[in-house]
Amino acid sequence: MAHSLLCRVGRVVQAGRWPYVATRTLSSEAQEEPLTLREQHDGIRRIILNNPKKRNALSLAMLSSLWENIVTGVDSDDLRVIIISARGPVFSSGHDLKELTSAQGREHHTKVFQACSEVMTLVQDIPVPVIAMVNGVATAAGCQLVASCDIAVATEMSTFATPGINVGLFCSTPGVAIGRAVPRKVAMEMLFTGRPISAEDALRHGLVSRVVADEASLEEETLAMARRVCQSSRPVVALGKAAFQRQMAQGRDAAYATASGVMVDNLALRDGQEGIKAFLGKRKPTWTHSTEKAHE
Amino acid sequence: MAHSLLCRVGRVVQAGRWPYVATRTLSSEAQEEPLTLREQHDGIRRIILNNPKKRNALSLAMLSSLWENIVTGVDSDDLRVIIISARGPVFSSGHDLKELTSAQGREHHTKVFQACSEVMTLVQDIPVPVIAMVNGVATAAGCQLVASCDIAVATEMSTFATPGINVGLFCSTPGVAIGRAVPRKVAMEMLFTGRPISAEDALRHGLVSRVVADEASLEEETLAMARRVCQSSRPVVALGKAAFQRQMAQGRDAAYATASGVMVDNLALRDGQEGIKAFLGKRKPTWTHSTEKAHE
Amino acid sequence: MAHSLLCRVGRVVQAGRWPYVATRTLSSEAQEEPLTLREQHDGIRRIILNNPKKRNALSLAMLSSLWENIVTGVDSDDLRVIIISARGPVFSSGHDLKELTSAQGREHHTKVFQACSEVMTLVQDIPVPVIAMVNGVATAAGCQLVASCDIAVATEMSTFATPGINVGLFCSTPGVAIGRAVPRKVAMEMLFTGRPISAEDALRHGLVSRVVADEASLEEETLAMARRVCQSSRPVVALGKAAFQRQMAQGRDAAYATASGVMVDNLALRDGQEGIKAFLGKRKPTWTHSTEKAHE
Repeated sequence: MAHSLLCRVGRVVQAGRWPYVATRTLSSEAQEEPLTLREQHDGIRRIILNNPKKRNALSLAMLSSLWENIVTGVDSDDLRVIIISARGPVFSSGHDLKELTSAQGREHHTKVFQACSEVMTLVQDIPVPVIAMVNGVATAAGCQLVASCDIAVATEMSTFATPGINVGLFCSTPGVAIGRAVPRKVAMEMLFTGRPISAEDALRHGLVSRVVADEASLEEETLAMARRVCQSSRPVVALGKAAFQRQMAQGRDAAYATASGVMVDNLALRDGQEGIKAFLGKRKPTWTHSTEKAHE
Repeated sequence: MAHSLLCRVGRVVQAGRWPYVATRTLSSEAQEEPLTLREQHDGIRRIILNNPKKRNALSLAMLSSLWENIVTGVDSDDLRVIIISARGPVFSSGHDLKELTSAQGREHHTKVFQACSEVMTLVQDIPVPVIAMVNGVATAAGCQLVASCDIAVATEMSTFATPGINVGLFCSTPGVAIGRAVPRKVAMEMLFTGRPISAEDALRHGLVSRVVADEASLEEETLAMARRVCQSSRPVVALGKAAFQRQMAQGRDAAYATASGVMVDNLALRDGQEGIKAFLGKRKPTWTHSTEKAHE
Repeated sequence: MAHSLLCRVGRVVQAGRWPYVATRTLSSEAQEEPLTLREQHDGIRRIILNNPKKRNALSLAMLSSLWENIVTGVDSDDLRVIIISARGPVFSSGHDLKELTSAQGREHHTKVFQACSEVMTLVQDIPVPVIAMVNGVATAAGCQLVASCDIAVATEMSTFATPGINVGLFCSTPGVAIGRAVPRKVAMEMLFTGRPISAEDALRHGLVSRVVADEASLEEETLAMARRVCQSSRPVVALGKAAFQRQMAQGRDAAYATASGVMVDNLALRDGQEGIKAFLGKRKPTWTHSTEKAHE
């Protein structure tokens, strides 16, 4: 069980290629600098949406860039946690509507939504936690990206909306992630009225898990969380993340069977035993981050 | 997909007749004036529970009247949103207990609960959003009606309760709607103790999506929401509502497959293309409200 | 339906024996006094975790003691509600890590998690409501126990955490209960960072349903709730609790079919009819607490 859960993502990523190549480039600016930036230090990878002029629209090219920057080296022990943030006052405004005109055609539209769903589910299926760090406006698929991350931290001035109905395109795919993050009535009011909710309301209803005063606190608080993840064992976190996703899709009794099996597998890991020995010996644990079993 | 989702409700309503006729009239007052009032202007239908002397009890006759006023012309383009409110200090006190005595018999009891479930699910299955506008007390099936609406707005002094256990009748059917609207522990405390929760707590836990100070603000805020719905395209809203209900009942990956297909169908609608063209052309969209496909 | 739901738990408890006997006793203190205390007055059973020196760890012996004190006489009409609390500043710190070393072996680990899941689901499956009364720290499986109770009341200074990742053991089984109690993002932040949340945040997110100022108010408030449960009919509460659990695991339409059938069965109970007659006759009901049907 541990093996299959731990290996699942690795296999997908190795086998997979991003199949949604943006064959037609619609904006000239997009080529000038990378659509997303990536940097990584001490286990923390930061991915920054980098197209503020286009309100960080999730064009096919942006989704491709985001996908690449998530999967690259995702199975390496050097990577422990990912933070997704954005340049400019808009976290992301969602799809690039130029890609959704009738001129682009039904097949192209299908590709855009498949690509988007692929990125949203990838965030949940990779073996490291992904934190959305939001300072600004997140709308439509941009709001969906926040809802899809494992953890979300936002500044007080951030807002969240699904205003698709204003342009005749109901936010049905964002509704998948948002409907699973907040109470149903809150999701439906957002979807039917398009009205933004405040960061405070987003916290109240579970769309984000923490709200901070300003950008400085946002950096500080998010990095503190990320560092905390780095202090734990990579395979333990990976196993736990995969188990959480799996059991939440099951009924209660099946969920307990899944989770109990995972606990036993977790204990069989070297770091599972190291953690307990360190605790009982009142010392700090030294993780191997190995996915191999401990000697019994 | 768009076609099937859009047509589903229409077919049900055309084919269906309200099969739960109240053959025995239990209260004389009920006949004096209509149990529910209906008026409609500019796309906004208001349905008002109109039996304050009986605390707007959801008798079989009231459920029938409510059902009729919901389905009448529900497929007409003139209708865009429904607001359900009530006359008097009680939004609704739930079932009429006179209809649930042993004298009425098991078959009659079955009819009452089937009729009630029919109305509660109808609210969620029709193609226009339904807003509960609450100023007062909503208990038992009355609370269930609030929980069943897509959106709910309440005044600060409103309260919500499921006090069935006080009269030896656990609120099991209200529990279906309330258990899907608020966290499990909140639902169970309400069900086991019968104690009312405040509007503030209802907002905190997602039973309502907005709380306002007084009756004047309630009218204003609810109508503002309703007008906002009216500014969007009817088939786009209908498609989005049906898709939300459908995908929320599915696992994540199936939900994305459903919702992605719906997005593509939405873009194929005339209003889907009009909205995007208007946005790109920086003008206001002009909706056709047609369910036909755009020319490609 | 009423019959099968009402009898289900009874049968399980009569047929079942606690199969997870702690063959090896790991702590000497555990034998000095009972690991859990039980007292019962006027229908209210109080079970107190009684191993403060070991932070009320849910060792196999503690789980066994808890299980015994829950099931003993659970089908007696004398029992109407259970309150679980704890001695000392820690409600419960979760599993006893000494039982999870490699020296204990995989089979023993499996037994520990099965025993724990058995207790957590027992709390939800018995016919009387279970209230967690928390004054202090609840971590890991201790937090899971709070999340598993039907209702939870806590003092302001109480905190809740799933810090397993700190000792290399991700709180996957606690995640089953916590993931079904609070929004997903809140659960995941707790699981990935191990950081405690305050009682206020626990209330905001639905992990507890009520927060009070201090220990005196905690006693008062929890007992008031418990007394309220005692004022209602036992089989009505039992039927309602079982129906709630069952329908919440179903889709909406199936849930309404279940719950509607249960309402009809509830009305067929003597206390179902007594409650309605008392209400219509403007007198207090006199419950028989009988599971037999009323004469029609």
